Amino acid sequence: QGTRDHPPAQAALRERLLGAVVSCFKRHGAAAIDTPVLELRETLMGKYGEDTKLIYELQDQGGELLALRYDLTVPFARYLAMNKVNSMKRYHVAKVYRRDNPATTRGRYREFYQCDFDIAGQFDPMIPDAECLKIVHEILSDLQLGDFVIKVNDRRILNGVFAICGVPESKFIRVCSTVDKLDKVPWEEVRSEMVGEKGLSPEAADRIGEYVQLHGGLDLIERLLQDPKLSQNKLAKEGLGDMKLLFEYLTLFGITGKISFDLSLARGLDYYTGVIFEAVLLQQENEHVEELVGVGSVAGGGRYDGLVGMFDPKGRKVPCVGVSIGIERIFSILEQRLEASGEKLRTTETQVLVATPQKDLLAARLKLISELWDAGIKAEMLYKKDPKLLKQLQYCEDTGIPLAAIVGEQELADGVVRLREVSTREEVRM
Amino acid sequence: QGTRDHPPAQAALRERLLGAVVSCFKRHGAAAIDTPVLELRETLMGKYGEDTKLIYELQDQGGELLALRYDLTVPFARYLAMNKVNSMKRYHVAKVYRRDNPATTRGRYREFYQCDFDIAGQFDPMIPDAECLKIVHEILSDLQLGDFVIKVNDRRILNGVFAICGVPESKFIRVCSTVDKLDKVPWEEVRSEMVGEKGLSPEAADRIGEYVQLHGGLDLIERLLQDPKLSQNKLAKEGLGDMKLLFEYLTLFGITGKISFDLSLARGLDYYTGVIFEAVLLQQENEHVEELVGVGSVAGGGRYDGLVGMFDPKGRKVPCVGVSIGIERIFSILEQRLEASGEKLRTTETQVLVATPQKDLLAARLKLISELWDAGIKAEMLYKKDPKLLKQLQYCEDTGIPLAAIVGEQELADGVVRLREVSTREEVRM
Repeated sequence: QGTRDHPPAQAALRERLLGAVVSCFKRHGAAAIDTPVLELRETLMGKYGEDTKLIYELQDQGGELLALRYDLTVPFARYLAMNKVNSMKRYHVAKVYRRDNPATTRGRYREFYQCDFDIAGQFDPMIPDAECLKIVHEILSDLQLGDFVIKVNDRRILNGVFAICGVPESKFIRVCSTVDKLDKVPWEEVRSEMVGEKGLSPEAADRIGEYVQLHGGLDLIERLLQDPKLSQNKLAKEGLGDMKLLFEYLTLFGITGKISFDLSLARGLDYYTGVIFEAVLLQQENEHVEELVGVGSVAGGGRYDGLVGMFDPKGRKVPCVGVSIGIERIFSILEQRLEASGEKLRTTETQVLVATPQKDLLAARLKLISELWDAGIKAEMLYKKDPKLLKQLQYCEDTGIPLAAIVGEQELADGVVRLREVSTREEVRM
Repeated sequence: QGTRDHPPAQAALRERLLGAVVSCFKRHGAAAIDTPVLELRETLMGKYGEDTKLIYELQDQGGELLALRYDLTVPFARYLAMNKVNSMKRYHVAKVYRRDNPATTRGRYREFYQCDFDIAGQFDPMIPDAECLKIVHEILSDLQLGDFVIKVNDRRILNGVFAICGVPESKFIRVCSTVDKLDKVPWEEVRSEMVGEKGLSPEAADRIGEYVQLHGGLDLIERLLQDPKLSQNKLAKEGLGDMKLLFEYLTLFGITGKISFDLSLARGLDYYTGVIFEAVLLQQENEHVEELVGVGSVAGGGRYDGLVGMFDPKGRKVPCVGVSIGIERIFSILEQRLEASGEKLRTTETQVLVATPQKDLLAARLKLISELWDAGIKAEMLYKKDPKLLKQLQYCEDTGIPLAAIVGEQELADGVVRLREVSTREEVRM
């Protein structure tokens, strides 16, 4: 349940999609790493807040207690700490596992691919962070998914807001996950969860509400920097200063048109410490995407300066910022679009079918195809001793093979091959 | 334990290696499929004989009973049955899991990649089987791993041998796994396991010994076809007939020089029903490979005509033959070889570093690099506001970036960029 096989047509589409994402990551100078699907259970515990219950655990069959990775970020942090790496730009494309309620039509599975790009190291503020946003912008533009917006916020600004609204620090993370629901449910519901489940006073909730419903650009950052209460909070001030710097860099990248500073963005995970962001596709009228109500977030990420330290015996910190592309949702959209267009993706790359027009020519086919393979040419033949020529040409049409190399008795006698272009039926002897 | 991270240098080598294997599979017209790492526990049970104990099971966390796949063959058979596919040529490159005793220096891990190519469908005998052997030959030749031999046998011949030596049919599979040890231990040990653990009579074991120590080529096939007892056995006769046909096709492919018909080859798995094969690297003197005593098998496979039927509610059979490339062992060899050569593999593909020679030019760098990315050029810059030029050029040398695009105050004023070839220090203004 919540997993799926990818038959050839889907696998080919996926290869194309992952290819586009990986080529963007490489364009930004990232190196690949690979880590096991299995992690020690203790590595994953205490990193995902309320979602820890979604971790797949392996049976204790004697040996270590293991679990399936929940994302690629925690394994990356574990990798950096274990290998004492201080600085690295890496990408990782691999499957992750969550015991969630699957919603397969919206592209939510229990096993799914993540495509992560992260920059680890002590650098000048906001330069790597800006590059992560540039990457999201490039990928979503390249894939022509339609209009999108990248929401940006900072955990320090949120925490500052909570502090000046009278939330005790011990409740920051839990209130954060409540705020994060604002993109799915109206403020009233979020407010009542704050007051009920999370135990805030109605006044505190209302004060939070005034902030977290704000969104805008540089103007909003400036306004909040002037806010008498918020600007007094050290964390919030730092966050707002960095946000301003980030917008400056994004302006140089020419992408602020798609960026929204949005105080309702909180992101569920515990480990974020600074900038956070999330890209959302915008609904389009007269478009198939329209049917995918709630496709929502297609990329997300942020800064996590404390995570590596949690794995280091001496608590040595390595600041990190990264982005994860929500490839499954994008895949669902592209799949629906491909289906609607009626276009058929080739599932193989075969260039030529080796065919014979008469009986008893299997030996000739085997000899010729062997020569073609040895010359690096992608070639197939039917696995029949005496296939009909029509069947062989039909196979070309069905699978999109552009050429047929035909050897009959005459060709054998003349020492030639008839090369036929399947679509035009034109032939040359060579 | 028994798993490993792949840092960038290893990941790059692995990408190159998998690329070579996949390109061979594509050359033979295979389509890709993808299946989940998780399978229902019941899918995997009863398919791997004595090795079933090595399957990783997931904890029962409510829901289905799951396990990690042990290989890519059983999931492929399950896929064919579930989707009622009668004919398919597919490849699959993915990780599999075995709770085995790891022997990491010999490339044996608990999590490792398999690279499988399989042909499913009802075809004329031995044509797909011959192609599988051709593929092994192509890959091992391409990778220049040194001399190798591909051992070939047929389960029907083995079963015929067991039958005429007086082994009851119920013991065939168990005696098979004993015979399979002949490549690692001497005949005397195999014999005593047959008599002791497997309960054969000493005479039966001796009669088996006369056959399973034979190996050769077409001549041996002919000799056994004349063997008065063996040729009376229906299964063995079929197997020998097909083996003769196989050698005919392999002669047309020009690869019999590396093929050995070897009656000791049995292969451990239950599901083989016909041709089986295994490629072994041969020890070479004055070579680093020499140190890898026991690297042994680097590819294997065979025909399994009954496996798909085990998953079909109506028992509908789909004949299959396939090959699995033992990528981890090959990887270990290439890694050692690379280390010995001192060659350094680049881990990124960055073409140009955007650099500045003076302070306060971060904006110029951000603007230029953004233009380069948008033009599809692989570019990096240091994440510092004011890095020293020397440090920037040093980064190019360390990571193998061939070009530096330098913008200083003068260049900005002139509206140009200095493009520097890092190795020669030659510059052009453009």
